[in-house]
Amino acid sequence: MAMEKLSNEPEDYVDEMLDGIVAANLETISRLSNTNVLVRNGAPVGEKVGIVSGGGSGHEPTHAGYLGEGMLDGAAAGEVFTSPTGDELDEMIRACDGGAGVLCVVKNYEGDVMNFDAAADMAAMKADTEVAQVVVNDDVAVEDSEHTSGRRGVCGTIFVHKCAGAKAHQGGDLDDVQRVAEKVIDNVATMGMALTSCVPPEKGEPTFDIDDDEMEIGIGIHGERGVERTEIAPADEIADRLAENVLEDLDPEGEIATIVNGMGGTPLSELYIVERRLQELLDDRGLEVWDAWVGEYMTSLDMRGCSITVLDLDSELKELLAHPADAPALSV
Amino acid sequence: MAMEKLSNEPEDYVDEMLDGIVAANLETISRLSNTNVLVRNGAPVGEKVGIVSGGGSGHEPTHAGYLGEGMLDGAAAGEVFTSPTGDELDEMIRACDGGAGVLCVVKNYEGDVMNFDAAADMAAMKADTEVAQVVVNDDVAVEDSEHTSGRRGVCGTIFVHKCAGAKAHQGGDLDDVQRVAEKVIDNVATMGMALTSCVPPEKGEPTFDIDDDEMEIGIGIHGERGVERTEIAPADEIADRLAENVLEDLDPEGEIATIVNGMGGTPLSELYIVERRLQELLDDRGLEVWDAWVGEYMTSLDMRGCSITVLDLDSELKELLAHPADAPALSV
Repeated sequence: MAMEKLSNEPEDYVDEMLDGIVAANLETISRLSNTNVLVRNGAPVGEKVGIVSGGGSGHEPTHAGYLGEGMLDGAAAGEVFTSPTGDELDEMIRACDGGAGVLCVVKNYEGDVMNFDAAADMAAMKADTEVAQVVVNDDVAVEDSEHTSGRRGVCGTIFVHKCAGAKAHQGGDLDDVQRVAEKVIDNVATMGMALTSCVPPEKGEPTFDIDDDEMEIGIGIHGERGVERTEIAPADEIADRLAENVLEDLDPEGEIATIVNGMGGTPLSELYIVERRLQELLDDRGLEVWDAWVGEYMTSLDMRGCSITVLDLDSELKELLAHPADAPALSV
Repeated sequence: MAMEKLSNEPEDYVDEMLDGIVAANLETISRLSNTNVLVRNGAPVGEKVGIVSGGGSGHEPTHAGYLGEGMLDGAAAGEVFTSPTGDELDEMIRACDGGAGVLCVVKNYEGDVMNFDAAADMAAMKADTEVAQVVVNDDVAVEDSEHTSGRRGVCGTIFVHKCAGAKAHQGGDLDDVQRVAEKVIDNVATMGMALTSCVPPEKGEPTFDIDDDEMEIGIGIHGERGVERTEIAPADEIADRLAENVLEDLDPEGEIATIVNGMGGTPLSELYIVERRLQELLDDRGLEVWDAWVGEYMTSLDMRGCSITVLDLDSELKELLAHPADAPALSV
């Protein structure tokens, strides 16, 4: 086995990872039997609106790392870069319905959107579950892609989890939680880049070839190639390029929240070098950074690279971002 | 610039990283001017015992990521894999003394131990600061090394920060905080491995050569080679090998806390695959895992690999581990 991974059989990668997440969080997270769905222990949680998400694996800590009080109730994992099945999504939705309905936070990929749609219909039919859905499409790099019509959903999804999760925890009803999620989606934008490709376990080789001295701007999170390939630029130029595209799309005026996100193989030290330049540039533009996240939130297996996310804030979103949350990816 | 890093000039790597850490944590962390020392805002904090640490950079989030309530008051960063100077350590110690003295948590490397010793003398002379020191030596892979007499200090250091920080936050005096730190040191052990070397920014090339299908068992955190090179083994065999060495050294009987730590370039999914096998093995041995941490806590730049840490618990250490802490590496 020459693959440079800490793994066993490639076909067991997701299954074993999910068992590891449960093993590390026995008191808070459990696995619905015979599925790749993780839920908060005791889900549904009281009568609050359930918040669920899901998608292909390979983006850890997305989504299971956001299970917890003030964030997600359920997280469905497909195989690597593959949508979860409608049946598993249906099972998750019903498991997380405490009577107040369930909001599905879906990243914009055709498979995810289609399977969540089917699952919502099944859950409504089988259990009368009221289901609302929002589709996150924060990636400004491309308008359509090989897996998407419209923009892709990437790291901005984590701000949706945070704000919708907080609203549900505060007792908001399904309409209100959905409204908040849509407000985040309308006000968040992201762009990413990579120094290397990534190696899906079952494929065993990179999804695209790239020379040691090259980088790709505008990559997606499934090992898709970017929109432009150049020589590797200094971190400051990379930060400027990503931030300028994001700001051009969003045109924020006052307070913002930011994420400098690592793609899976990037050391934290490098993310802080990007963070430094990002904050400098935002200062220069008179934007006030109210909250700054730096770390690995939405990854692409072992890819080296980063993305920059900006969320344009109002007082409601600030209050929801500040609401306490307790999930493995946000605290020990 | 063909180096596969998000960075600018190699000589600015640490300086810019530190500015990025401050930029992301303006309300809680600041930089002592003209130094590479980061401290909690408002340090010294009341009359509690100050807890400080430091060492070469390249191990992020170590140590600045542990600055915060219930953990560290000061973190000194040397250049990559290079000890901070005695002068900067002295300045940090004095800045973190609120009158109750300062505990220095030192990883066992000759440069660090020597410079912390000198700094403690300077601080005592200049400001009458009472300084205590503990030296962490949790790495069971080697007895001596090129940079160490005795065992190296690695990821177990984070449990020292956590427990000593909690004790200080609870109002323990310097003797008591030191006693707790030494109890952790006496009861913690770690061993690591790597699939790749790491690339220090100023060197621009790997610290050792290793083929794609090889791994090193028993690596240190400064790009030192390990004690044995073999073909890459399945994750389960790697987990068994590391855990067995750690358990043989420690021989715990009851409840333990564990860390599956990534070396900087390892995706979280792979760490959870290791976590799954570790917990299985500990279950088989009748050990109860009271707390399990999985993530990047003590890294070696962009190295791919992991380490396993076990801490043998008693009721006091459990209570200190559970005490709330608020630091960038432990929460958003």
